[in-house]
Amino acid sequence: MVKTIEWVDGKVHMLDQSRLPIEVVYIECKDYLKVAEGIKKLWIRGAPAIGIAAAMGLALAAQEIKADSFELFMKRLEPACDTLLATRPTAVNIQWAVDRIRAFLENHRDESIEKLKGVLIEEAKKILEEDVAINRSIGIWGAQFIHEGDTVLTHCNAGSLATGGYGTATAPMLVAREQGKKFSVIADETRPVLQGARLTAWELMEEKIPVTLITDNTAGALMKRGEINLAIVGTDRTVRNGDVANKIGTYSVAVLCKEHGIPFYVAAPLSSIDFSIQSGDQIPIEERGPEEVTHIFGKCRIAPEGVKVRNLAFDVTPARYVTAIITEKGAFRPEDLKELADPRADLERLKIQLKQ
Amino acid sequence: MVKTIEWVDGKVHMLDQSRLPIEVVYIECKDYLKVAEGIKKLWIRGAPAIGIAAAMGLALAAQEIKADSFELFMKRLEPACDTLLATRPTAVNIQWAVDRIRAFLENHRDESIEKLKGVLIEEAKKILEEDVAINRSIGIWGAQFIHEGDTVLTHCNAGSLATGGYGTATAPMLVAREQGKKFSVIADETRPVLQGARLTAWELMEEKIPVTLITDNTAGALMKRGEINLAIVGTDRTVRNGDVANKIGTYSVAVLCKEHGIPFYVAAPLSSIDFSIQSGDQIPIEERGPEEVTHIFGKCRIAPEGVKVRNLAFDVTPARYVTAIITEKGAFRPEDLKELADPRADLERLKIQLKQ
Repeated sequence: MVKTIEWVDGKVHMLDQSRLPIEVVYIECKDYLKVAEGIKKLWIRGAPAIGIAAAMGLALAAQEIKADSFELFMKRLEPACDTLLATRPTAVNIQWAVDRIRAFLENHRDESIEKLKGVLIEEAKKILEEDVAINRSIGIWGAQFIHEGDTVLTHCNAGSLATGGYGTATAPMLVAREQGKKFSVIADETRPVLQGARLTAWELMEEKIPVTLITDNTAGALMKRGEINLAIVGTDRTVRNGDVANKIGTYSVAVLCKEHGIPFYVAAPLSSIDFSIQSGDQIPIEERGPEEVTHIFGKCRIAPEGVKVRNLAFDVTPARYVTAIITEKGAFRPEDLKELADPRADLERLKIQLKQ
Repeated sequence: MVKTIEWVDGKVHMLDQSRLPIEVVYIECKDYLKVAEGIKKLWIRGAPAIGIAAAMGLALAAQEIKADSFELFMKRLEPACDTLLATRPTAVNIQWAVDRIRAFLENHRDESIEKLKGVLIEEAKKILEEDVAINRSIGIWGAQFIHEGDTVLTHCNAGSLATGGYGTATAPMLVAREQGKKFSVIADETRPVLQGARLTAWELMEEKIPVTLITDNTAGALMKRGEINLAIVGTDRTVRNGDVANKIGTYSVAVLCKEHGIPFYVAAPLSSIDFSIQSGDQIPIEERGPEEVTHIFGKCRIAPEGVKVRNLAFDVTPARYVTAIITEKGAFRPEDLKELADPRADLERLKIQLKQ
């Protein structure tokens, strides 16, 4: 499987996903500014992936720091933290990664600055490896929802390319396939940036999972014809009450699912859950420039010059539309999600476990 | 306003809408085969427009016919009728136009063949002129639903370009603007062929009606934010019970409207209403080739080579999602639509008339 991001010889190698599926090109990032550029320009995207990128960006920044004390080192790391946090506001994973790196550094405050720089690289790589393991767990908890003969709708890309590997929404598909289930996937193309057409369809074809591409506006008609059995999507930020922010169009899919009695699942690693926010209306929703809508790949114009455009990059699906949230600790009802913030919660009692 | 189609010096001039908004190019059709090609390839599209094209195509075909009797003339017109009817199955307007032309010719069966050829051209032109008048009436009956300060969502293109002029879904907008109402329009781009982005946004900008372009998957989020007050769409075929076939994605818009308590209106000239069909599941739904989805303008590839694609060109919105059907005879509840098939129906009693 193509690597989304990798630490190689003191640099960050980042697949430029904006060129997929036409070209497979890696950008070599020598400093955190290049990593930040890659996040803003969507060379790398997908909530878990940009969290990993932020961690690696901080590791790169750390290598350049000249400091003779821990406090000075942390102070000189701040600009990199700020820059990376400012790239994109909706996914919580960059904040999560920055918080984790800061906490890690605090725990190593008595080490030499040189030692710190070294272990920070190891921690960034560990974040990537853990992400893959987390996704595998999500796959195990989510595979129960895919039955023999099902057609699964997915939106945007929450596959390997959105993560350190394996994917979140795709993880249950990979595990269900290992379990020997026969099923197929419908990927909606996900305008404007076409992550579904360019990335999800590509990944699933590489994995030899049967996939059919549709335009975003076709899902309703297929549900009405009984051709979709369930939907699984990822999330950029899911909050305490189970409201889910994800790629624009997710809310429309959820409403359609509800109208047709179709289950709607959200694959959400804990790194994408923000317990500090009570409900979805408090999630910042990024709006991006018009050219993503008016031009394909920056070159093929599809609208009149100067047309006014509204380009919301994300939307919020209220918890009541969500059948279950699949985390690495199990699948839960959205109303039970807040229990995961409590270390003493009895998760066994709350987990959804279908008879297979 | 740019003319969609025109009879000029014994030929049919057809705007090639597949090249809009980048180029404004007319194709000169010297025979009915070229007209049929234009319908299949979407140089001309929109239900009323393809009906007019079919009528003009038959007028072209008639000019070539050598016959010494009416029966032979009608027999030699059949291949043109068949070819035009076979171009696209969903809109009822081609059948309507062919039926009208045949009935017209029957009524003139005692004329000379040369005279027939001449009056047929006049009848085809009359169909175009009547279409504009019909659309104006639709505008008058529909403008009541647009209130001061409203934001109107529309889908696909049911404007001037979809008709002989003036448009069906756009007609209420043009009349409301005449009435001095301030309002704005949101046009969703309408993948895969992008009639919303390429045609509707272009037309409305030409008309100086405020329009904002969105991707199809953004409508739900805007409705949830309270930013859309009503939706008006056209139709390719509306049937006896008020079920509505229209461009793919219409059904999703209707479901979203219902979820948000937003009125959903369908502008439907009588030429697009098929009383011979009882309900929407009997409407033939065209499926088109994958390249419309995988390539933009036939050249910009956005998906992996060989990806499986499902390209439904239309969907069916059941009557229960429709607030009112706006015809040239008035706006009616979908459950009352069948009354329009009865020449003795008391339409005054059935018409929807809001206090203004």
